[in-house]
Amino acid sequence: MSDRDPPFRPDRRRLLTGAAAAGGALIGARMAMAQTAAGTPDPAIVNLPPWTRYLGDGVDARPYGMPSQYEAHVVRRHVPWLTADPISSVNFTPLHELDGIITPNGLCFERHHGGIAEIDPAQHRLMINGLVHRPLVFTMQDILRFPRENRIYFLECAANTGMEWAGAQLNGCQYTHGMIHNVMYTGVPLRLLLEEAGLKGSATWILAEGADAAAMTRSIPIEKAMDDCLVAFRMNGEALRPEQGYPLRLVVPGWEGNMWIKWLRRIEVGDQPWGQREETSKYTDTLADGRSRRHTWVMDAKSVITNPSPQAPIRTGPGPVVLTGVAWSGRGTIPRVDVTLDGGINWHRARISGPSLDKSMHRFYFEFDWDGRPLLLQSRAHDSTGYVQPTKEALRAIRGENSIYHNNGIQTWAVNEAGEAENVEIS
Amino acid sequence: MSDRDPPFRPDRRRLLTGAAAAGGALIGARMAMAQTAAGTPDPAIVNLPPWTRYLGDGVDARPYGMPSQYEAHVVRRHVPWLTADPISSVNFTPLHELDGIITPNGLCFERHHGGIAEIDPAQHRLMINGLVHRPLVFTMQDILRFPRENRIYFLECAANTGMEWAGAQLNGCQYTHGMIHNVMYTGVPLRLLLEEAGLKGSATWILAEGADAAAMTRSIPIEKAMDDCLVAFRMNGEALRPEQGYPLRLVVPGWEGNMWIKWLRRIEVGDQPWGQREETSKYTDTLADGRSRRHTWVMDAKSVITNPSPQAPIRTGPGPVVLTGVAWSGRGTIPRVDVTLDGGINWHRARISGPSLDKSMHRFYFEFDWDGRPLLLQSRAHDSTGYVQPTKEALRAIRGENSIYHNNGIQTWAVNEAGEAENVEIS
Repeated sequence: MSDRDPPFRPDRRRLLTGAAAAGGALIGARMAMAQTAAGTPDPAIVNLPPWTRYLGDGVDARPYGMPSQYEAHVVRRHVPWLTADPISSVNFTPLHELDGIITPNGLCFERHHGGIAEIDPAQHRLMINGLVHRPLVFTMQDILRFPRENRIYFLECAANTGMEWAGAQLNGCQYTHGMIHNVMYTGVPLRLLLEEAGLKGSATWILAEGADAAAMTRSIPIEKAMDDCLVAFRMNGEALRPEQGYPLRLVVPGWEGNMWIKWLRRIEVGDQPWGQREETSKYTDTLADGRSRRHTWVMDAKSVITNPSPQAPIRTGPGPVVLTGVAWSGRGTIPRVDVTLDGGINWHRARISGPSLDKSMHRFYFEFDWDGRPLLLQSRAHDSTGYVQPTKEALRAIRGENSIYHNNGIQTWAVNEAGEAENVEIS
Repeated sequence: MSDRDPPFRPDRRRLLTGAAAAGGALIGARMAMAQTAAGTPDPAIVNLPPWTRYLGDGVDARPYGMPSQYEAHVVRRHVPWLTADPISSVNFTPLHELDGIITPNGLCFERHHGGIAEIDPAQHRLMINGLVHRPLVFTMQDILRFPRENRIYFLECAANTGMEWAGAQLNGCQYTHGMIHNVMYTGVPLRLLLEEAGLKGSATWILAEGADAAAMTRSIPIEKAMDDCLVAFRMNGEALRPEQGYPLRLVVPGWEGNMWIKWLRRIEVGDQPWGQREETSKYTDTLADGRSRRHTWVMDAKSVITNPSPQAPIRTGPGPVVLTGVAWSGRGTIPRVDVTLDGGINWHRARISGPSLDKSMHRFYFEFDWDGRPLLLQSRAHDSTGYVQPTKEALRAIRGENSIYHNNGIQTWAVNEAGEAENVEIS
């Protein structure tokens, strides 16, 4: 591990694949000669691209805007063979097509168990009942009368990278790591709503329940509920998207996504966990000896290189490459990410750019000059508690290979001479 | 001005417009009795809302997601009489429907002068020419080989609030203040590209030029170009939207939006400003005596209350109200926002929630218990340089009423007993 690698010094002669401007043979330049229909050279206009020659759409054309037609490939994707039916399934965030730390709402991965509930907010209610002094029902208007907060958090499904326990399976970080997104939530601290109802002395757990056809339920200890949970109604400024729980979702910072109950309709307060399906038969971690760990809620530090990766090969040949990826931890911030180009022989410290926020995605970069030879790319996140992302080997030594959840092992991409990347494991 | 206002203490009996849960007469509850077709009471199912009774769309339905049908009113809007044609016009961000500090890409206001250029990124080039040692042409692939950064910035049109110089005109913060948005940009520091071309000693200005049909051009001093400008290709994680300059836009932090050249195709380096249309006949500030100030690039500290406001009245009657709004400064951060409920007799310190970032939007809140009497709402931003947002009266005393641009005066909303708000001026 070297913290004193030289700064980025690309070979400047290889930086540009476009032409030098000398001579002016470039798009939009006015020196190009061409024949008009009348046979007269018209140097000023003919070689301009259509977007410079014609007026485009006006400001009345798109009340709610969408991406360029040239970005039509940047979408959430699902894997049909992964589940029996798309109604209870998952799709994946196209991490390899994104940058920075904000996931745009239209690309946030989806996981639902009974399809997308399409809720009329005027009809929606949130009930708080159980071990409280005053059971309450809130309308959406009621919720909006409580003080609210704005915080950026990652949400990662516990099953993210779950297919990889038995070895390299899926070819693309969208599929191996795309069950995560990172947005700014606006919501009311759950603590304020519980205080409004008045917790009884015996209150030690809550059960959060969704209004979708699956009526998803999860138990959460009262300490977490009273700490940093939000009852959120906005993501990235606008209303929650239907597939993310519109009009209300529980935000459980740093904890597995399944607990972030969407379409939130009820909070029951109790004195023990309920032992519902999603915390017994599912979302427990089966060990090598067949026993299962439960209540493994926190998402530990993890990272992945998003470019280069199988869906995003090096297309520019040898020379400068911007390696980039994302890192996160359910226990705090990410002060440091290391990357290796040679499967762990040499580690380099990556550069983190963008806000470093608690339980939020971090963006890292490592710029290097590629000599065109094969690479074994890995990234390794360190979180603010000092925890270091483990190898898959180290993880399996403790957890076996029976699990589906909480695989935060180091990911390896093998890059060949053509710049193509593949999901591999090395030991 | 009191910095020692009591903390928010709502009258708890008035907080809830929904019913108390006693008796269980609530949506999703299973105690409701109803008759099935066969005449048998079916307490478990009949009273559940449709979204709980039926499976919804699966994960294959929406590769790129959109807002709920119940949010169809949350759109950019334009004012037809404001300009001769929507091709060269503006629409407005629905600030009153947003929260937090991120503007979702689909709702970022648009201003263009020749319609939306629909550029094929494979055909797009960026040229750097003029007083440089090596004129260059960059493809998009070239740009992606330089180190990049992620920063959240507001972009405000210099004409934002421009209709209000002669008095209160437009009824709604979407129209008075909606020529602003705030997103995370990913881009290459312009400095790196200029260094790649090699600035000659005489270089003191750049001209940035767009590839749209208007071929928008603006002069920018070299100090700014070498400081914090970005050549950006992503906003909020994904590719720039077409109406925001896809595939490349110049980001000029804190300076008027017109300088943030969209569809960026050329940077010419020179030794004096070019005096183009958009920096002579437009985007100069005409004073009372007919002279014009030019090069008034920085957007000074400003704020507006977004709720309550004319488009977002108080709908819940007397009792707890969450007043909220946004504040920003082209010179730094916003450490403090004051609000008044009585037209400036008493000022209260607002609470800022969310990241406080340089030249980025800030979100403020002030929770109060409304007694149902008329209100005169104002907000006043303080920026990190110590500058305080002025009254419109103070602004007009210096700048007259001939201007269109740089109106950052304090906005007043009058709220009546019914909770309806109106754009007014008080003196």
